[in-house]
Amino acid sequence: MAPAGGWVGSLWPMTTRGCFVVLDGPDGGGKTTQALRLVRRLQAAGRDVLHVRDPGSTVVGERIRDVLLDPALGEVVPMCEMLLYQAARAQLARGTIGPALDAGRDVVCERWHYATTAYQAFGGGVPREAVVLTSELATGGVEPHAALLLDVAADVAAQRMDRPKDRIEARARSYRDRVAEGFREVFAEDPSRRHVIDASASPDEVEAAIWRHVEPLLSGEPRP
Amino acid sequence: MAPAGGWVGSLWPMTTRGCFVVLDGPDGGGKTTQALRLVRRLQAAGRDVLHVRDPGSTVVGERIRDVLLDPALGEVVPMCEMLLYQAARAQLARGTIGPALDAGRDVVCERWHYATTAYQAFGGGVPREAVVLTSELATGGVEPHAALLLDVAADVAAQRMDRPKDRIEARARSYRDRVAEGFREVFAEDPSRRHVIDASASPDEVEAAIWRHVEPLLSGEPRP
Repeated sequence: MAPAGGWVGSLWPMTTRGCFVVLDGPDGGGKTTQALRLVRRLQAAGRDVLHVRDPGSTVVGERIRDVLLDPALGEVVPMCEMLLYQAARAQLARGTIGPALDAGRDVVCERWHYATTAYQAFGGGVPREAVVLTSELATGGVEPHAALLLDVAADVAAQRMDRPKDRIEARARSYRDRVAEGFREVFAEDPSRRHVIDASASPDEVEAAIWRHVEPLLSGEPRP
Repeated sequence: MAPAGGWVGSLWPMTTRGCFVVLDGPDGGGKTTQALRLVRRLQAAGRDVLHVRDPGSTVVGERIRDVLLDPALGEVVPMCEMLLYQAARAQLARGTIGPALDAGRDVVCERWHYATTAYQAFGGGVPREAVVLTSELATGGVEPHAALLLDVAADVAAQRMDRPKDRIEARARSYRDRVAEGFREVFAEDPSRRHVIDASASPDEVEAAIWRHVEPLLSGEPRP
């Protein structure tokens, strides 16, 4: 789906030496484990790395995250939920990630607007155009240099989730199936930057598969 | 400014017997005082009235309000702030105000998207188109039957604010001047539904001026 247009007034550098990598996908795919492994690999390659999670990693973003994941919150309309995710993303993108890339740091981010499309549009019924437009507002239109979908079968994911569920995780199987389908569809739309990783493989294999997509980005040349 | 279009999928009834009235304007204009007086007048006329404030009046909306007004929150980019207001508004519009109007109740609401245009666009520099688009998403495109700007000179407003300031109220005079100008500009755009009230008059006079705009709406006919 095409971006909404240039009227947002992007705050982002046109090119950057820092590399922006996103790990996304359904719960139970091992995003945090793999993000930590990727950070260590990048650091071992001599890179200065910032590790963030979306929503979160800013003062207001962590407050928004607490609201979103609170099981006591009761019924929230999907449009409200979607706008809350975009609010947290705006602060993270414009206040933290943009300046880090501009300073030449790499950024490893758990989740990005792909998740909002999967959960709130495919899962919650918010029109996709609404997610596209507000993602453009939140991020200023920047795309990660590499976005990796940690794709995992629902039964494997369920086995890995051996802790109490938060408000989003507690939803029904049919919802999670729509979400998984949404992730696959959105990742199929830009094969140059979005890649699907089989996350049911061993952690070492997943780490190696991610690295095969990230390592080629680490040249000294600024990139769009 | 024209609405963004019909693609949002409005959840609202096409016509309603309930009457939707908004009081908006800079801080210190007496919105809460006048909202309470308007509610009493409507009730005295035999109406069933819901009194709400935006942001707020829902579980998630009050949580968002707490985040937005917290003086300890630190720096928040205007786009994040704008999306937070729209998130709270989405829940209030779709989960509370829409169903109330549909059930034939009147709604008196303190603040609406006019304030987001004034504070975040004119005050904070967010593009107006971004506010228009996200207001459409939040509200499903409905407009109040009457929106009343309680317009008050800055020195009168300051005198009335004899309590500790919240995060928004603590901003500089130049910011508040841009906000006041934004309110006047947005209220000039739809004279059929948006009206400016001189809120430096006495509370009884302001109440009477508001009632002159609301009373004609109380016919038995459903209205768009």
